[in-house]
Order: sequence, then C-alpha cells, then structure tokens
Amino acid sequence: MKALVYHGPGKRGWEEKPKPVLMATSDAVLKISRTTICGTDLHIMKGDVPTVTDGRTLGHEAVGIVDEVGAAVTTFKKGDHVIVSCITSCGRCDACKKAMYSHCTNGGWILGNTIDGTHAEYVRIPFADTSLYRVPAGADEDALVMLSDILPTGFECGVLNGTVKPGDTVAIVGAGPIGLAALLTAQLFSPGEIIMIDLDDNRLAVAKSLGATRTVNSTDGKAVEKVMALTEKKGVDVAIEAVGIPATFVMCQDMIAAGGHIANIGVHGKGVELKLDKLWDRNITITTRLVDTVTTPMLLKSVISGKLKPKQLITHEFELDDMMQAYDTFGNAATTKALKVIIRSV
Amino acid sequence: MKALVYHGPGKRGWEEKPKPVLMATSDAVLKISRTTICGTDLHIMKGDVPTVTDGRTLGHEAVGIVDEVGAAVTTFKKGDHVIVSCITSCGRCDACKKAMYSHCTNGGWILGNTIDGTHAEYVRIPFADTSLYRVPAGADEDALVMLSDILPTGFECGVLNGTVKPGDTVAIVGAGPIGLAALLTAQLFSPGEIIMIDLDDNRLAVAKSLGATRTVNSTDGKAVEKVMALTEKKGVDVAIEAVGIPATFVMCQDMIAAGGHIANIGVHGKGVELKLDKLWDRNITITTRLVDTVTTPMLLKSVISGKLKPKQLITHEFELDDMMQAYDTFGNAATTKALKVIIRSV
Amino acid sequence: MKALVYHGPGKRGWEEKPKPVLMATSDAVLKISRTTICGTDLHIMKGDVPTVTDGRTLGHEAVGIVDEVGAAVTTFKKGDHVIVSCITSCGRCDACKKAMYSHCTNGGWILGNTIDGTHAEYVRIPFADTSLYRVPAGADEDALVMLSDILPTGFECGVLNGTVKPGDTVAIVGAGPIGLAALLTAQLFSPGEIIMIDLDDNRLAVAKSLGATRTVNSTDGKAVEKVMALTEKKGVDVAIEAVGIPATFVMCQDMIAAGGHIANIGVHGKGVELKLDKLWDRNITITTRLVDTVTTPMLLKSVISGKLKPKQLITHEFELDDMMQAYDTFGNAATTKALKVIIRSV
Amino acid sequence: MKALVYHGPGKRGWEEKPKPVLMATSDAVLKISRTTICGTDLHIMKGDVPTVTDGRTLGHEAVGIVDEVGAAVTTFKKGDHVIVSCITSCGRCDACKKAMYSHCTNGGWILGNTIDGTHAEYVRIPFADTSLYRVPAGADEDALVMLSDILPTGFECGVLNGTVKPGDTVAIVGAGPIGLAALLTAQLFSPGEIIMIDLDDNRLAVAKSLGATRTVNSTDGKAVEKVMALTEKKGVDVAIEAVGIPATFVMCQDMIAAGGHIANIGVHGKGVELKLDKLWDRNITITTRLVDTVTTPMLLKSVISGKLKPKQLITHEFELDDMMQAYDTFGNAATTKALKVIIRSV
Repeated sequence: MKALVYHGPGKRGWEEKPKPVLMATSDAVLKISRTTICGTDLHIMKGDVPTVTDGRTLGHEAVGIVDEVGAAVTTFKKGDHVIVSCITSCGRCDACKKAMYSHCTNGGWILGNTIDGTHAEYVRIPFADTSLYRVPAGADEDALVMLSDILPTGFECGVLNGTVKPGDTVAIVGAGPIGLAALLTAQLFSPGEIIMIDLDDNRLAVAKSLGATRTVNSTDGKAVEKVMALTEKKGVDVAIEAVGIPATFVMCQDMIAAGGHIANIGVHGKGVELKLDKLWDRNITITTRLVDTVTTPMLLKSVISGKLKPKQLITHEFELDDMMQAYDTFGNAATTKALKVIIRSV
Repeated sequence: MKALVYHGPGKRGWEEKPKPVLMATSDAVLKISRTTICGTDLHIMKGDVPTVTDGRTLGHEAVGIVDEVGAAVTTFKKGDHVIVSCITSCGRCDACKKAMYSHCTNGGWILGNTIDGTHAEYVRIPFADTSLYRVPAGADEDALVMLSDILPTGFECGVLNGTVKPGDTVAIVGAGPIGLAALLTAQLFSPGEIIMIDLDDNRLAVAKSLGATRTVNSTDGKAVEKVMALTEKKGVDVAIEAVGIPATFVMCQDMIAAGGHIANIGVHGKGVELKLDKLWDRNITITTRLVDTVTTPMLLKSVISGKLKPKQLITHEFELDDMMQAYDTFGNAATTKALKVIIRSV
Repeated sequence: MKALVYHGPGKRGWEEKPKPVLMATSDAVLKISRTTICGTDLHIMKGDVPTVTDGRTLGHEAVGIVDEVGAAVTTFKKGDHVIVSCITSCGRCDACKKAMYSHCTNGGWILGNTIDGTHAEYVRIPFADTSLYRVPAGADEDALVMLSDILPTGFECGVLNGTVKPGDTVAIVGAGPIGLAALLTAQLFSPGEIIMIDLDDNRLAVAKSLGATRTVNSTDGKAVEKVMALTEKKGVDVAIEAVGIPATFVMCQDMIAAGGHIANIGVHGKGVELKLDKLWDRNITITTRLVDTVTTPMLLKSVISGKLKPKQLITHEFELDDMMQAYDTFGNAATTKALKVIIRSV
Repeated sequence: MKALVYHGPGKRGWEEKPKPVLMATSDAVLKISRTTICGTDLHIMKGDVPTVTDGRTLGHEAVGIVDEVGAAVTTFKKGDHVIVSCITSCGRCDACKKAMYSHCTNGGWILGNTIDGTHAEYVRIPFADTSLYRVPAGADEDALVMLSDILPTGFECGVLNGTVKPGDTVAIVGAGPIGLAALLTAQLFSPGEIIMIDLDDNRLAVAKSLGATRTVNSTDGKAVEKVMALTEKKGVDVAIEAVGIPATFVMCQDMIAAGGHIANIGVHGKGVELKLDKLWDRNITITTRLVDTVTTPMLLKSVISGKLKPKQLITHEFELDDMMQAYDTFGNAATTKALKVIIRSV
C-alpha cells in the first residue's frame, strides 16, 4: 500500500509500504476513506517532535472502513464505518477510568507518532473497541473527519475547560484551524460575545462568517486595549489561547476578568511569565489539556443534529494519491489560505 | 391610581387604589411601564391560592421606572429603568446566601400574593437592591417582561435542573407558555432533539416554529410509545414536566432513559405515583423547584445578544386600562390562542 | 469444585460443580479467597429475582487470586490478588463510557444472577480488565471484600447522589448493612450531624459506635417529628433511604429541608407516593441508582489510608465449606445480629 | 477608645481614637471581644500595602458584640454576638450575586485597609447584614475568630479550589498559619495523604500533630524528588501553594500529577515562571483566589460539630491592652514559634 513516510526533518515521501497487520487481539485494521492533516504533522516535519522517528507513517485523523478485527474486538466488525480518534484509549488503565484518555498508560497520542498513522491506505488501530466511533448511516464523512482531533480539541481544551456559559464574553486568541474549532464549538453554549483575535485579516473574516461577534487584528499591539474597551474595562469571562507562544498567553492574562478562565490549547515550546503579582487575588482559573476525545460521542450527535457544521473548516480537497500536494498546500497556509484539507480515497 | 384587585374566587375589578408608599428603607416604588399575566394569576382567580386575600392587587411580572427609593437603596435611583423579579430576595438570609431566593425568609414569592403586585400603575418593591435588575439602554421592554418570571422559570426549573447538554434528547411535556419558555431556553445548550408533547395541535405548531425538532400530540394516549420509537427504545435524556398533573408526571417516568433527568416545573395540586419499583435501579434524577431568578442576569445577557428571543411568546397586546380585557383574553387561551399578553402603560 | 447452588425459592445446596473455564478472550477465572453474602442473595432465595434460574451459583462479592486469563486480558495475570466488582463492566459500551457501569450493555449485575457467581471455589469473570481491581500488597482481604458491593453502594447511591457536604445534617433511614455502609462513607465528607433511623435498638447502637451523632427509633411513628425537632423545623439536608418500602421513602419526603436531596438506595418492589403537592416548590432532588462501582479506586485508597474501616461491619466469620451455615446466620439477622459475614477459603 | 494605629512603615501605636459611629443605614458598630493578627498586618507594617495610609486602625479579624445598628439593618440588633468577616460584602453587586464577595464593588477587603479595622475596642462594619455571622449560643469565641479569615482562606483558596477529594494525595507547600489552615480544612474531605513541606522542623512537627501524614523539610532542595518518590513518580493530585514566592510556585508545578490541581493561596509580589512547555499537555488546573468567605456558614457548622478544631492554631494569648506586645510576638514567629495569637477584651 501507499503511505506518507517521514524521513527526518523536511523529508517525506509517498511510498509503498506493507499493509499493516493485526498485532494484538484488541487491534483492528482499517481501510482509510478520509483523512486530513494537522498542524502537529507540520511540527513533526520540522523535526520538533523527537518521538517521531525515520520511517514513520504520519497522520492521526481519519474515517475508514474496518478491514479486519482481532479476536477480542466485540464492538466492530469487518465492513463497519468508523471514525478514528487521535487518542488511543485502552479503556482499562487508571487514566482511562478517569476519562483522561490522553494519559492512557497503553495509548494516548501514539498514531502517527510512535506507531504508524492514518496518512496511508490502511492503518492499524490498537484497542479498537475503545478508540473508534461508529459512523451513523448516511452521515457525511468529510464532516466526521473533523471529529478525530480538531473539534474535540477545541471543545475540550478550549470550551469545556474554559466553562463557556450562555451570555459569557469569550475571547479566542488565534484564528487558525484550532481557534476556529473552538469558535464553532463554543457556540453550543450560546455565549453572548465571541471576540476573535489574530494577525491575519483573512482568518478574521472567516471567523466572522463562522460566528465571531467581534474581530480584533492584533498587529498594532493594542488587542488588550481594544478588548478592555469592548468589555467596559471588565475583561472577558473566558480567554482561549490557541497559538502557543508566550505573547499570546500573556495577552490572555491581561484581558481576563476577575473570576475568569484562561483555557490553553496552544502547544508551547517554552515557559511563559505568569503574572501572579497581578492575578493572585483575581480568582482566575488556568487550564492545560491534551485532548481526551471523551466528548466525541456528544460532538457526533451535535454534527448529526446539524447544530455543529464542521465542514465549514474545509478549504481544500485532495485524493489520497495527492498526499504530497496536500501537505504542500496545508504547509503554505499563509498563501493558500488553507484551514483544513480533506483527503479522500477513491 | 388604578389596579387590578382580587375580591375572592371569580371576582376582580380595575379599581382606584392609593398609590403605594415606601414602608422600609430598602423599598422602592416603581411606575409600571410593561406587565403581563401569568397562569398563576388565573389560579388565584379560581381561588386556588389561599394566601391571596380579598383586596389584593395581583401581578408579579413587570418592567418599570423607579419613582422613589428608600434611604438604604444604593443600586437604583429615581428614573432608572428596571425589571421586576417575581421573587423578592432580601440578599441576607441563609436561603439567599445559597442563591435559593425562592425560599428567602423575608421575601420569596410575595408580589401579587401577600403584598400588592404589578397589575397597577405603581408597585412597591421590597428589598429593591436585590429584587430588581437594570434595563440596558435601548433594550426592548416588551421582551424584558419575559425575564420577570417565565424565562427564568423555564430555564432554572426545566433546563438547568434537567441539565440539558449539547446533543441531548429532551422531551417537554406541555406546550403552554411555560413549556415554550423551557423550549426557548433549552436551545441555549444546543440539545440534539427537543420533542414537544401536548394535546393541542396549535400549540405544537407554535412549538415547531420556536425550535422543537419533533412534536407529539398525546391525545391518543400513545405519546410514550412514540417517544420510545423516536429514541430507539432508550428514552429521553431529559424530560421536563410543564403541566402539573399526575398523568404527565407519570408520562415523564415512562419515557426517561437510564441516567436521565426528570425536571418538574408544573404546579401540582395532589400527589403522584412514583414508580420506584421500575426506577430504583435506573440512575434517575428528579427535581422540583420554585424559580429562584438567580439566572436573570445570564438570561438578560442572552436576550441582549439576540441568542434568546422571548418576544416570540407574545400573542396579544393591551394598554394598562384594558387590564380586564387582557385577563379575559389570557383566561380563554383555548379560543384566543393566547400565550403571553403584553400590557403597556401609555 | 464446591458451589452454593440455587434450586428455586427456598432451595439451595453446597454442591459439586465443574470448575469454570474461560469462555471469551477477555475472561479471567479466579480462585476465591474471601466472599460474603448480600441481602440480594436472600431476596433471590425467596424467589424475588426472576432472572435467577435453577442451577445458578449465587454471590457477587469476593476477593480472589487470578487462576487463568484469556488472551486479551492485559491488566492481570495468574497469581494476582484482585477484588471482584459486583458490577461487570465491558469498558466499551455507551453506558461504560459515561461511567454508568450498572447499565453496561454487555455486563452490569450479572454475577450470581445470569451467570455463575462467587459463592464457590472458583468463578469466571467476564471483561476482567475492567471488572477487577488489584489488591495492594499487604492489604487486609477481609476489609477489601466490602469493596465488591456494599461500600460503593452506600457511597455512590447514598452519599454521592445525596451530595453530602461538610457541615450537612444527614438522615439515614435504615441501619442495616447498607445503611451502615452509607454511614461509614458519609463521614468521608464530614457532615455535621448523621441521624440514624431504625426500628431496632441493637442496630442503632451499632450505628452510634460507627459514627452516627444521633439515633432515632421509629417504632412509635414519631421519627419525622423527632427529626424536625432536632433540626429547628428545617428538616435535613440529605435523606438517604436504605430500606426499600413506601413508608420509609415517604418518611424521607416528610423530613427533607428546602433545597435538600433524597437519595434512594433501597430496592423497591412497588411504587410509592410522591407528594408533589407539597414538594413541587421545595427545590428538592430525588435520585435512584444501581451502584456503578466507579468509586472503587477512591474507596480502596480510603481503606488503605485508614480513613475508612469497613471491617467494623463484619460480625461473623466462616470457612468456605460452612457456606450453608453462613447463609443461615445471615438470613436470621434478627436473632444472630449479623451485619456482614466473612467467608474464607483455607 | 484605644486602637492600634499605623503611621507608615515600621511605625504603630496603641492610641486613643474616637469611637466609630454609624455612617450609613446599613452599618453596625461592634464592641470587639476577640481579635487576632494576620500575616497581612505584618506586610502592612513593612509598607508593602500602599492602600493603607497613615492613621489607619489595622485588623480584619474579630468576634464582637453589636453595639449599634443602622436603620436598614434587619439581621442583627444591639447585644448580638457576631463573627466579623475579613471581606465586606454588599450582597447586591454583580460580584456578590455570583458569590465572589472578594470582588464586591462596594466592599471586598476594606477593613484595616481603606477603613478602620478590628484592632481596637470598637469597629464600624459596613453592610452589616451581609458581612457578619451570628455566633451560636455557647460557642467558644477563641475558635470562632479563626473564621474571620484564616479558615475560609485555607479552605476556599486551597482546599475547594484544589478540589481535594477522598483518597487524594495532597501537598501543602508552606506550614505557616495559612498552610496549617489548609491542612485542617483539607481533612474535611478525607484525602489519603497530606504531605506538608516547609523549611522549619518545628512547623513541620506542628503539621504532623494537626494531621499531616508526611512532612518534608525542603532545606536541602530535594522536596520535589522526595514527593515524587512518595507518589511512585506520579506526583500529587493537589498542590497548595501557601508561601507566595516563585520558588514554591515552581515546586508545585514540578510535583503535580497529570490531571492535578495547583491552588495558589500565597500573596505574590512578582511574576513567576509557568512551565507551559512541560504542562501544556498535562491536563493541569491552576487557580488563584482572594478569599470570598462564602463558606463561613459551612465552616462554622464544622467547628460547632467538632469536625474542625481551629483552636489548635492558637499559640499565644493576650489582652487587648497588650496589643503592641501581641504584634511583637506574632512578628517574631521564628523565635516565638507563634502561629495565631488570640487577643481578648476583658
């Protein structure tokens, strides 16, 4: 079969590899029908993720069809349509029993990281019973690929951890795909205002079309000032950090209201300043989280009911054999204006 | 001034009464600009509420303008536009400190019950600082009258107590004004399905236009059967009782899924059967509540942001001097198809 | 091997049966080292549980040693000491993913019910990875048997569902083993008062020694009156029903404070009256639950740390071959004063 | 009357001042019967709190007797015994309605800060109805002074914000009075382990006597290493920071388990490093809080029931006229081993 293989920083190929086989009784092998590329895949390509080694098939998002299951798999059988979760959950360790699948002792984020991933014709999924979700009959597979990672990430790390409530004023710092996923899923709780902050007017325009009530271009360094003006100097109830650099995390601290929540989604490469001298008496909550994908069933129901329309995030479409080009397009988002790309087998 | 005065079962008049005066330093007197009639006012007129005695001015919903405040009132001053809460809260007793204003030792539901109410040109409001809410500049007063009682009642007793979540399947039994208020406010949490159940096709049609995804006419006695069919025999996650008779409360028990919530809003005149032999092992939660109006600020923000559009509940409009006619219209809802009437001073 | 076999109402034998064998890759077979008898086993013996058929080995509580595991079991291996949960959880169905193991599609309460149970030398445990808990080195196995059922039942159905908080006034109606388990576990949250209500002075004396701050013998029909007097007519914050008859459930309704929680543990054979005419405006929460055993890890830590001392519930000790006598003793609790019996293999 | 008056950094006197008088209808004036000194008072004496100006009477903790009430006060009358809350709450602003009294628009921490405080024979209390708590008959006033500040601070900022649960492993960094208050109140939720960390062996010995299960002297810089060893390298579920310097806040980050809570109590004078590069994917929650004193009624019930014994914190006793000496003793805690001092009028 064909797979997108990593060969060290900057080097990848669309190459022939052996089709994966069952390695444990709880495994399944899927034929990929849809996949997409994540910002994390680009980080890997830059060499930023040392756990990914030469020869690894990348990718942790997909919808597929079950091709084969191990003897212990009881929930799925050959031919079933399924959504792949980016987080593999064994369902039996302490972390999984606490619904913190991200820290599963036997799984966690392993797909396209420490085991071969979904950017291929076939993929092996460990602990299939607890790491796959059934596709309802008639559902749009393009939309469902967004349930592998980006929607639960925006929802769990941003919206739920930020405890977005009806009437709240929410700021989302970063209008990339993950910030936009937070924007879409925040609306499930009907906040009064969602202020989207970014450096890029195009992304802010997209944000507006997806439900942002206000947009702030932060290029002039006055984002905090503007947000304080919009909120009668109180600041926002919820600030969602969706960039991953010190400046944006500090921005969240500078615009949070007393009693507010700062929910970090961004992947940070270094420490940041926490202004405890300003915040120690402000009744603030700060959260971090690697997505657990525990809300996938809830989000799936929201997609099916039409309350959540994640296809709005898809800007480009490719066939599986155009994988290299899909990476190029997604990797040059500044010029291609790519948000999420959909890659389909035919 | 003129007031709607109760004179025992079936007897009321639009009569001249003295304008109310301040009786405590924490009082305010308001000039009424908008009011409405509640199903409870009709119950009073039938003689069902023994705490209401001859000579009482009815009404517990209104928007008005502050005419006078006591020496201890610090939040409002003459000329301020305010929403009256149907629940008077002293802000200082044990119940108020727990945000259970409905059981305020010094207040609770007293307006139009044990003290004179809002169906008049003026009304005295005890504990004004903690029982009134400021009207934002430019807001539509007709919409805000719905914040006095019906919206917080539907939201707190039905939606919050029922813990409606994104993707949930919700049944609301009773499509009268209060059931429709639950329908409107439930949508703040984006449930997947809202099934509205009633005997009246007109009300069900209204429910459909206000966001119900399914409607069931229960005249044929097969409502439970139909709901079970719609839910693959699992039943609903949340059942909201908005009628107040044994049959509808039993219906909720018969359609609730394992782990589900039955939220009672209805005012019950007698006991009901609780099928504990069927439910003891079903992980069910049942709640009762007199509205606390603690969510009024949240709902006000949702109205201002346009997420909640309560004017949809208003079917008829009157001037204050047409109060007697307004009662007639609201009292004959079966023929007039009245939901909420708005009564305006001029 | 030997097993306690049910042969229809009133008929049981300690009989030779084949040792259980693995039937699925997720199964384990255990050698029983400790077991105990539950009130439910007595109900079965009376013929009250129609799902239990002639030939069934009873029992759903035990500590044991893993004798054999299926190919898919990864958490345990031969020789491991484990606690058996009374609830079998597959870890992969919708209910299990919501931590409502009691309603597991593939498990739930099946041990000693629809499959052979723990009153035997060996038992087969389906879904072993998610239905067993590891015994920490050096732990007292007698104490740990109480984690199979009675402690999580009292804690989850009574204490957690009742939301017992520091300073609360709690009433527990019924001082049998399950009421006493609620008493022990309620103290993890430091309520201010625990009032124990029963007809039996001996059980009330035990309750007092286990931490009840007050006891009320309800033989004279004045329990509600006494509780109201003890609470300045406010009633209790939490009422835990641990009997399972209409009279005691009504008692809970009559003594609950506004805003209070009624947590049902009792197994009810018929419906009860719910006084909605009295309670509709009292902000009451009523819960039912079949134990999920999701708190077993938390309770295990509490036992190991010494905060919870469940051996206090054990009144009688037997060897496995004395199983018939153990049933007699436990079945005649009124005369033997039995609470929990411990049955040990040798 | 006599009062302890601040005259700039390092200067204070026990001086004659006019007895306070009512300034608003919601005020009360109390005669102080018990007071104590807080670490914050020492900070003020160093000149660290710029809002405190020359001539201010210090102190924000006390039990007293109502001497006079304004016309709007309805909850208390002359002669009532009351506990003073360190936080003044108006009960009517947005923050108070959300139970965030610390950010009360009209109050907050003002006593002994922007208005005269409790280190005097008499004190004026604004918003008396919502800022005082009634002393139950027969209660020990020495114990109740601990409810003014230190117990709710340890409980709300440390224990509740840290979400301490039965079985949890908790680390408290700092065994001063506030860390010990967290230690006492954490036990209301029965954690499995409480590890107390400090530089001072005497304070650690006190911590042990008050319920710490482990103590770690961090003088050797190996506290994190030791805690990781005690927790099988998992880290702690809850880390409570009760010092207020960067090093201890970093220590909390280094010992927190995945999914854990860091609850800051310390008053910080500068920013700290937040290791987001290590924590972004660890599902951590960090909280800050100025005490709201919303749990005072709950804690009062726990003191009355004997579950909480705050007198254990009192090391020294003085009469009111020995106020200057009390400050000296408390200010030299390193040599006097003072924790809390009680100061009584006679």
